[in-house]
Amino acid sequence: MTINKRLPTAIVLLGLLFLLIQYGGRVLTFLVLQAVIAAALVEFYNLAARKKLHPQKILGIILALCLGLAFFFRAEVQFELALFGVLFLTGVYCLFSFTRVEHLPYFFQSVAVTFFGAVYLGFTLNHFFLIRFEWGPFYVYFLCSIICLGDTGAYYLGKLLGRRKMTPLASPNKTWEGSAGGILFGVLGAWAARQILLPDANLWRALLIGALVHAVAQMSDPLESLFKRAVGVKDSSNILPGHGGFLDRMDSFVLAAPFFYFLLRYFWK
Amino acid sequence: MTINKRLPTAIVLLGLLFLLIQYGGRVLTFLVLQAVIAAALVEFYNLAARKKLHPQKILGIILALCLGLAFFFRAEVQFELALFGVLFLTGVYCLFSFTRVEHLPYFFQSVAVTFFGAVYLGFTLNHFFLIRFEWGPFYVYFLCSIICLGDTGAYYLGKLLGRRKMTPLASPNKTWEGSAGGILFGVLGAWAARQILLPDANLWRALLIGALVHAVAQMSDPLESLFKRAVGVKDSSNILPGHGGFLDRMDSFVLAAPFFYFLLRYFWK
Repeated sequence: MTINKRLPTAIVLLGLLFLLIQYGGRVLTFLVLQAVIAAALVEFYNLAARKKLHPQKILGIILALCLGLAFFFRAEVQFELALFGVLFLTGVYCLFSFTRVEHLPYFFQSVAVTFFGAVYLGFTLNHFFLIRFEWGPFYVYFLCSIICLGDTGAYYLGKLLGRRKMTPLASPNKTWEGSAGGILFGVLGAWAARQILLPDANLWRALLIGALVHAVAQMSDPLESLFKRAVGVKDSSNILPGHGGFLDRMDSFVLAAPFFYFLLRYFWK
Repeated sequence: MTINKRLPTAIVLLGLLFLLIQYGGRVLTFLVLQAVIAAALVEFYNLAARKKLHPQKILGIILALCLGLAFFFRAEVQFELALFGVLFLTGVYCLFSFTRVEHLPYFFQSVAVTFFGAVYLGFTLNHFFLIRFEWGPFYVYFLCSIICLGDTGAYYLGKLLGRRKMTPLASPNKTWEGSAGGILFGVLGAWAARQILLPDANLWRALLIGALVHAVAQMSDPLESLFKRAVGVKDSSNILPGHGGFLDRMDSFVLAAPFFYFLLRYFWK
């Protein structure tokens, strides 16, 4: 995966993303976010399908969308109601679609994987919506700055200094040195975002958030790697040239986005 | 399964349950409920283990307990935070316990089944706690009256009049006639509970709740049957003589308890 191949895709995507985050309204942002989540979910289910786990893609997308609606209508609807709705829909779907004896052998794993994928991606990534509309676009850049600088730092410092392997099974290239570099550059990303975008914010809290958020972000990557290694593939798809798939691009955010949101809510001010 | 065998167990359990619901404080009720949920969850995981899905029992119980704490500390903690905690703990656990290549082949289904079980039982059944402490013990009896009379009505009317099969794969004995009988007797249960316990409540709303709650309750039973049939067993365990296991006893409540709670919240008054 060369820089030449990655760069044009990255520039186009970043430009579009910037326009969306800065100027997109609630409805457009919500729809694009749901589309990205659905795309990542389909890639996740494609991984599961390779293991013959029979994910129910259509059901899963509906479940993720149902969770998404709870974020969109947050003022009116409790999240718990949406989660109940998700379980209820799962039940209705199962009773009407698992009707033949040939379906029984994979019923158990099929339901579990479909449900897990919808919550794992739908619940977590929808926190972008809350960050954008409860805190504003600058906070989205704040998070992205932590993640992107942190990931870059982890990659290069890991290459340069990496000795002790952290998760030999999940991500053989991950080292403790790279991880420390990720946190260091995550702090740097937080510092830059605070200086440029949020000059009134408390500096030390911003730096601490940078360190914590990147530490948590580093967990979701080997987790996704485990899912991929469990089925024996490297990238979840190749839809973004040189960048793997949506799932690969989003994986750092899966745990980091909700964590960042809760830090803002309970710790920021 | 004869009446002789079922009756003594039922009387002892019902007596203890009555004492708990009527006189138990928040802490005791919470602890007993968590124990029941954990027991049902272990039975669920034992089913999954028969399919070689490698559920992580300890992790699953911790996850369910984590969700339970969100109900106990409802005033202080958002449910979303608990769900994030559950995903985060799942991630930490995976990275530290799936460390050998032999673990990879079952990683995917293991994580999904563990997570699904914890939410499917932990999220739903903890609504008993809310019903008890936000609405009072009479509302717990209200729900139990709908479910128990409804289930009895469904069983006997199904035996007597049942012709047209509803879910041939999941529960071959379930008929549309039995289902109608269940709803009829669910309404009867709601009527009795309203007359005796809640004389000031609106009669028609109570009857409507009886019908709706039993209709939803009827869905969770064939769902659990599908899980059992998928692994080829009849009862989830035999810990309660003549009653199957905790999972069998609780299955009608899995969807009905949260549904009843939301009806109270949004429709009752």
